[in-house]
Amino acid sequence: MIRTILFLVSFQLALSAKYNPEKRLIRWLMIDYDKRSRPVANHSQPVTVKYGFKLSEIQGVDERNNKLELFAWQSMQWRDEYLSWRPKNFDNISEITIPSKYVWQPDFIQENNAKDFYNKQYQEYFHVIVNHDGIVTAAPAGQLTTVCSFNLFYFPFDKHTCKVVISSWTYTCDEVDIKSNLTEIDLGFFKPNGEWTLEYTDVTNIETKTNRDYKYCSVYIHLTLKRKPLYYILVILLPCVILSLVSVFTFIIPPESSERIMMSMTSLLAFVLFLTALNNILPRNSDQAPMLVSYITVIVIAMWIALIISIFLVKVYFKDQPSKENIPDQNGNRGLLSNFKSVGELVKEKKRDIADWMDITLFWVFTIGLGVATIVIFVIIPPKD
Amino acid sequence: MIRTILFLVSFQLALSAKYNPEKRLIRWLMIDYDKRSRPVANHSQPVTVKYGFKLSEIQGVDERNNKLELFAWQSMQWRDEYLSWRPKNFDNISEITIPSKYVWQPDFIQENNAKDFYNKQYQEYFHVIVNHDGIVTAAPAGQLTTVCSFNLFYFPFDKHTCKVVISSWTYTCDEVDIKSNLTEIDLGFFKPNGEWTLEYTDVTNIETKTNRDYKYCSVYIHLTLKRKPLYYILVILLPCVILSLVSVFTFIIPPESSERIMMSMTSLLAFVLFLTALNNILPRNSDQAPMLVSYITVIVIAMWIALIISIFLVKVYFKDQPSKENIPDQNGNRGLLSNFKSVGELVKEKKRDIADWMDITLFWVFTIGLGVATIVIFVIIPPKD
Amino acid sequence: MIRTILFLVSFQLALSAKYNPEKRLIRWLMIDYDKRSRPVANHSQPVTVKYGFKLSEIQGVDERNNKLELFAWQSMQWRDEYLSWRPKNFDNISEITIPSKYVWQPDFIQENNAKDFYNKQYQEYFHVIVNHDGIVTAAPAGQLTTVCSFNLFYFPFDKHTCKVVISSWTYTCDEVDIKSNLTEIDLGFFKPNGEWTLEYTDVTNIETKTNRDYKYCSVYIHLTLKRKPLYYILVILLPCVILSLVSVFTFIIPPESSERIMMSMTSLLAFVLFLTALNNILPRNSDQAPMLVSYITVIVIAMWIALIISIFLVKVYFKDQPSKENIPDQNGNRGLLSNFKSVGELVKEKKRDIADWMDITLFWVFTIGLGVATIVIFVIIPPKD
Amino acid sequence: MIRTILFLVSFQLALSAKYNPEKRLIRWLMIDYDKRSRPVANHSQPVTVKYGFKLSEIQGVDERNNKLELFAWQSMQWRDEYLSWRPKNFDNISEITIPSKYVWQPDFIQENNAKDFYNKQYQEYFHVIVNHDGIVTAAPAGQLTTVCSFNLFYFPFDKHTCKVVISSWTYTCDEVDIKSNLTEIDLGFFKPNGEWTLEYTDVTNIETKTNRDYKYCSVYIHLTLKRKPLYYILVILLPCVILSLVSVFTFIIPPESSERIMMSMTSLLAFVLFLTALNNILPRNSDQAPMLVSYITVIVIAMWIALIISIFLVKVYFKDQPSKENIPDQNGNRGLLSNFKSVGELVKEKKRDIADWMDITLFWVFTIGLGVATIVIFVIIPPKD
Amino acid sequence: MIRTILFLVSFQLALSAKYNPEKRLIRWLMIDYDKRSRPVANHSQPVTVKYGFKLSEIQGVDERNNKLELFAWQSMQWRDEYLSWRPKNFDNISEITIPSKYVWQPDFIQENNAKDFYNKQYQEYFHVIVNHDGIVTAAPAGQLTTVCSFNLFYFPFDKHTCKVVISSWTYTCDEVDIKSNLTEIDLGFFKPNGEWTLEYTDVTNIETKTNRDYKYCSVYIHLTLKRKPLYYILVILLPCVILSLVSVFTFIIPPESSERIMMSMTSLLAFVLFLTALNNILPRNSDQAPMLVSYITVIVIAMWIALIISIFLVKVYFKDQPSKENIPDQNGNRGLLSNFKSVGELVKEKKRDIADWMDITLFWVFTIGLGVATIVIFVIIPPKD
Repeated sequence: MIRTILFLVSFQLALSAKYNPEKRLIRWLMIDYDKRSRPVANHSQPVTVKYGFKLSEIQGVDERNNKLELFAWQSMQWRDEYLSWRPKNFDNISEITIPSKYVWQPDFIQENNAKDFYNKQYQEYFHVIVNHDGIVTAAPAGQLTTVCSFNLFYFPFDKHTCKVVISSWTYTCDEVDIKSNLTEIDLGFFKPNGEWTLEYTDVTNIETKTNRDYKYCSVYIHLTLKRKPLYYILVILLPCVILSLVSVFTFIIPPESSERIMMSMTSLLAFVLFLTALNNILPRNSDQAPMLVSYITVIVIAMWIALIISIFLVKVYFKDQPSKENIPDQNGNRGLLSNFKSVGELVKEKKRDIADWMDITLFWVFTIGLGVATIVIFVIIPPKD
Repeated sequence: MIRTILFLVSFQLALSAKYNPEKRLIRWLMIDYDKRSRPVANHSQPVTVKYGFKLSEIQGVDERNNKLELFAWQSMQWRDEYLSWRPKNFDNISEITIPSKYVWQPDFIQENNAKDFYNKQYQEYFHVIVNHDGIVTAAPAGQLTTVCSFNLFYFPFDKHTCKVVISSWTYTCDEVDIKSNLTEIDLGFFKPNGEWTLEYTDVTNIETKTNRDYKYCSVYIHLTLKRKPLYYILVILLPCVILSLVSVFTFIIPPESSERIMMSMTSLLAFVLFLTALNNILPRNSDQAPMLVSYITVIVIAMWIALIISIFLVKVYFKDQPSKENIPDQNGNRGLLSNFKSVGELVKEKKRDIADWMDITLFWVFTIGLGVATIVIFVIIPPKD
Repeated sequence: MIRTILFLVSFQLALSAKYNPEKRLIRWLMIDYDKRSRPVANHSQPVTVKYGFKLSEIQGVDERNNKLELFAWQSMQWRDEYLSWRPKNFDNISEITIPSKYVWQPDFIQENNAKDFYNKQYQEYFHVIVNHDGIVTAAPAGQLTTVCSFNLFYFPFDKHTCKVVISSWTYTCDEVDIKSNLTEIDLGFFKPNGEWTLEYTDVTNIETKTNRDYKYCSVYIHLTLKRKPLYYILVILLPCVILSLVSVFTFIIPPESSERIMMSMTSLLAFVLFLTALNNILPRNSDQAPMLVSYITVIVIAMWIALIISIFLVKVYFKDQPSKENIPDQNGNRGLLSNFKSVGELVKEKKRDIADWMDITLFWVFTIGLGVATIVIFVIIPPKD
Repeated sequence: MIRTILFLVSFQLALSAKYNPEKRLIRWLMIDYDKRSRPVANHSQPVTVKYGFKLSEIQGVDERNNKLELFAWQSMQWRDEYLSWRPKNFDNISEITIPSKYVWQPDFIQENNAKDFYNKQYQEYFHVIVNHDGIVTAAPAGQLTTVCSFNLFYFPFDKHTCKVVISSWTYTCDEVDIKSNLTEIDLGFFKPNGEWTLEYTDVTNIETKTNRDYKYCSVYIHLTLKRKPLYYILVILLPCVILSLVSVFTFIIPPESSERIMMSMTSLLAFVLFLTALNNILPRNSDQAPMLVSYITVIVIAMWIALIISIFLVKVYFKDQPSKENIPDQNGNRGLLSNFKSVGELVKEKKRDIADWMDITLFWVFTIGLGVATIVIFVIIPPKD
Repeated sequence: MIRTILFLVSFQLALSAKYNPEKRLIRWLMIDYDKRSRPVANHSQPVTVKYGFKLSEIQGVDERNNKLELFAWQSMQWRDEYLSWRPKNFDNISEITIPSKYVWQPDFIQENNAKDFYNKQYQEYFHVIVNHDGIVTAAPAGQLTTVCSFNLFYFPFDKHTCKVVISSWTYTCDEVDIKSNLTEIDLGFFKPNGEWTLEYTDVTNIETKTNRDYKYCSVYIHLTLKRKPLYYILVILLPCVILSLVSVFTFIIPPESSERIMMSMTSLLAFVLFLTALNNILPRNSDQAPMLVSYITVIVIAMWIALIISIFLVKVYFKDQPSKENIPDQNGNRGLLSNFKSVGELVKEKKRDIADWMDITLFWVFTIGLGVATIVIFVIIPPKD
């Protein structure tokens, strides 16, 4: 009724030369439009929403807090039966753009969002394009923060699959049916990331049934990310390997040399500090400690063993030193003592030989052990493509 | 009156073929609806709100600032006597979805929230589902930041019970009665956390009486979280234990060796730096300093004592050294001096023996002491399940 | 006029069985209500606001930026002459709850807020309780961030008095009169803080006169907080004291020993690094540098002096060493040289004695000095309760 | 129709002496104005928006997260056919200022924004200037956060070109045509940045075609920034070079000296820590590791080799030491042994000479190698202007 | 017209006993009030705004990002010709307080703001006081974040002048004329800052002409801040000076002593780490590197030179050592060799003397050099008041 009156009024206004046909159209559409009700004449039919997802950028991967930040351009298209018109009645306007807050929109949210279900910008500032046959296209774009559990076991050779779940939060499938026609996301505008390779994407339409027999429609977007390891190899792995090699070489230093224990000690401390530094990068996940942490832990224990062995060797060696130094002072009784000495010296030399032999053995044991561990952990275990 | 007029108007409109029954229904419901008043015809009866809580994720535990971040899906259900209709009058529509800002909602808040009482999203963007018999279902989801005092005494073997208090802030129990039917929270959608195990949950309905005899209804949700200690064992406890073992082994190094004091010194510094590093993880709570801090403090003091003892031993040993070195220069009076020397040497050797004996004793005292302390603190004291 | 008409309409509506009396009341109250004007019939009378403050939690003390974060439940009560009704006219409803944005509220702010004068939540989401005699009760709760200058001179034995100033920003006392009846804040819901003790609270009503003879009413809430020092004693003071004791003990190590300078050096560096670490905790206030910084500065200087003295002693001692070593090479002229040597040795031994004496003296001077400084600064000066 | 009535009313009001002509004008313009429709009478014609960009400041360059923060003053000018008037009808008012939310505005956004497409401030608080011939000028100013991939290969001698893309998000070129008349941005108000030089700017108008044959108009603003390297030379490069020079000089220290290995060790550790410190500045980009990281990695490996060589030299040298010390004890058999000794000594001296020769050679090899590497990397490779 | 009707209505209402005169006044004022138009009857006259600025607090100085955070109470006063009334008509009300969003306000912004031009709080929550003669007083208070380029050349003896520019963003001087009557800012409520002294303030009214001959009015507020250096002297300068003094004293240690190179090395590393630590405080400005960075750079280079010299001295000294030790072993040919030896010893002693002389010389050169540099840089250069 009111609509008809307004329609007549607007028609009359249209006669005046300068009157804006777009304004007339919008007003005509908006009269008696109620954006709270689903735009279908037949209540039993769902509104079918075609969903599209264009990934523009991977903005950040926060392994510690299990968050993935994306910047995506989304698109949604549905038919609003109350927003159609005959173009010839309105100066052949076949498409208009209006702020989205004036029309009905599906109650769509990102279900596994890390913070807020609704994006304020989507609700308040974006526009929709309305076609004369009622097709409404919304293209909200913005940051998405997805919850994603990162398993850093293979760090820095890790690969993760994250999920973005787009659903209609309150409408059931019988009311609003969100569907994606594609099986991969659109990467036409994707800016490659320096830290991560986007290996694989996958889009599927899922129907979830609740206990009360309601069905909810969602679009699941899977993204498989693979870390580019070069940086971490240079900055974390290499120093680790070099430090562990240094600590192994302490076995080659003669036990008399004061540098021996110092070197073990300094490397040990360096590793402890290194472990503390890693703390700031790695998440505190205790389900599966990253292989790298286990590796460093093993090295720290190995270095501690090396240090203890060095201390024992020093103890053994030095214990004899003073007696050796005392003997030459008693120059008077040379003959006898030189025989005695030679016995002491034989014992000492034997000890020395044992120490030398131990050193060589331990050097090779540790070198091979660490080498094998390093190769196994960083070359054999990491998953290949 | 106005309602009746509008009802007639809407009925008339309904005759036109394309008219949207959902829109007609919403308009009919909204005419004369006032979302500021409680939706009960009999003022003396409360609105009973059935409350449900689905924990989706533990997003973060901030021990330092005593905050627990959860992501939860809540549900509330009540009967709005002014939002009921006969489906047959409206094309058999039995359920509609409308933005929650158009209907009355209980003034529910999270009382022990760390920041804001009200969630803007809940107030402005969420939708409710309204059934034809007036049952309104709201399902607000989002982050909850709960205040929770963490007692880190047993860190990293600690367990905490946090509370989420959901109340009606201004309505008394006689007006709005919030109740949960469940005794445990719904974990159907719970994503396990890598750092914490959710051991136990509990939901209780509490009535609080104020001094003016008003009763306020709340739902208390208790969550018991247990830390998974593996990560901290690898990254904090193990280096601690290794460093303390290293410092104990200094007693085995002969006092003449220059490494002895250096090792004590370096370990001591390492511990001091370690303590500083722990600062960034642990809260500055002084009620009960974490056992780990006490443990490190004890070790630091023990290492300091070890260092002081080493210094004294060096002092005792070196005091004799120079005289010993001077004597052999006076080669001329060999016989006499060698006798005298032997006395000096006897004294020295005695001292040496005492020093050696002390070293061995202290080595065992410290080893056993630290071992016992470590076992008591990290194996015996920690609460078992 | 309009009111009367509406009243009649609402009365008529009330006849229909299901009509909501609360809605009728709210509508009746809101007709012609203007929330922009002060709710007094007699313009010359002030609106008296009874203010209450319940401290729920001390959320954080940011000494660096001079901010104190509290979580408080406030209450305000005033009489709105245009929000009263006779209960018997409205189904005996004697109290209603409505969103606060529909009624007049005092323009109250926290004057010494660190960020925003107005709390968005207070303005938009909270509800008020309106009694039939016009008494309006508002209970806004939320975070308060107060500016508070912290004097860390006695850190970690410091005590601070912070002020929360609640005022009416634009209304004078003649218009809105904010008053608190209590002299202490309500701590019924206070959760104790692990880092701070709330020693004393005080609430006073203050009238401030501006130059134009306007009076503004404020409520001043004073909170006296006392730091619990245990944590800082364990983590900062103890390592400081231990490190300074270690550096003092360098005087006991014989100057020949290569550990002597190394120990001084390492302690010195440790302190410098320690000072840098303190940087991250302490504010950069230059009015009164915290006693602790002065203490560390004094120790650093003392250690520097100790190091310089050690270097000189080494210089003196070693200067003689080579000549000593040269002499025995000239074995040929034993008799003469041994006499000459003994002179050299006497000189050397004298020097040695002086050095020893200096070491002992300095050891005691530094030990006593540091001990006295430590006791004075951490035991005598700190204010007692 | 309504407009005419209102116009008459306003005319009549204008007769009263005190009536505000500006208010009358605004009301006259706003009657029947619809800000949702494009302000052109002929629907087939685009609204041409003249775009201007004044860079006020470079606020921050976040290399790690690939973000560039600018503060810019933008200007847009278009003709609104429904906002024109004849000044003589309105007291000769030829220009008015009104809040921008009352008029139609192009749906312009920054397409490569790092966070939000729309700036809330632009939408809600800014004003526009409307000229009597319908020219509307909007001058929104604020922060722009642009996504920009930084290639740090030449760090700290790097240069980056960032892009700000301003588009109309939903209107096609046929509807809204955004154009910039300038080819460079206006730097009249630019405050120079201490860290970056703005080398070159460029503004181009781009038309993007989508698959459905729609054209979207954008303005691309390119900014070329060049880092000022002085700070990084002083704080990063210089210490790097000095540390590497120090480690080279270890070859000059005789192998007997205990400082040799210590120096290598300490420099090595310093570099490892240095690498860890660089972590906090550099982004974790693995496509092209910054030259500086490669440089440090090469030095670390070189230093490790130097250390290993030193250890071997020490091993070789010390192996002979004890036998040398044993020989003089056997004073009895001088003649024979002295010959034998001289052979052992010859061997030893040969070894010594080889060691010396190796040290000298290695010193020069490393010095020249590092020198050449340093010059090549920091002088030859960096791009000149 | 409408106004008159309403006036009559309100008059009639006023007859009823309880009717609120303030409400009547507000309604009377608001009828036909349009807050979009400038409140002057004569369009050609500007609205003159009297601007006042009370600095309440300096909240933070972010040298790194060139931002200054202030908390200020501003005041603006202008005459609104459409908000005046005769008090006797309204129960002698001579002044009312209403939310500022109901009246016209000048489009004033802070032009050199670091983030947002408009403060949401000013736009939405503040109130204005309206006098019966039309004088409107607004007193918005809040945080101001000003862009200010800090020149840290003299750090920590630096002094900066920052500017707060308050302008009308869209109104020209002919429309809105912002003026301050004062030449200094009001410091009546200023809370002194512990880190900065506010030396001087200055307020000037500036008219800026654009190319199109428009004049824009601004108020420039200059604040001159001087850093209080005590804290930085204790925590940065003093450790720097002490460390450099320590490194100078290495020249006094005899070259045989193993501590010599170790001390140089440790100090060098300490400085490098120190430089890295300074990174977190100082901005990365390359236009003028802070004097302190240059100072540390010079010291690092000096220490590097000292280290290299020490290494050469050790090399020279040790080169002779082994030959010296070898000679006495060949006891057999005493006479001849002792002569030969004495020659070798002479050479050695000469070298020793040269080394000693060099050490002393270098000690004084470095001591004086560093002393002069320290005094010049920290005492002479810093600008005095």
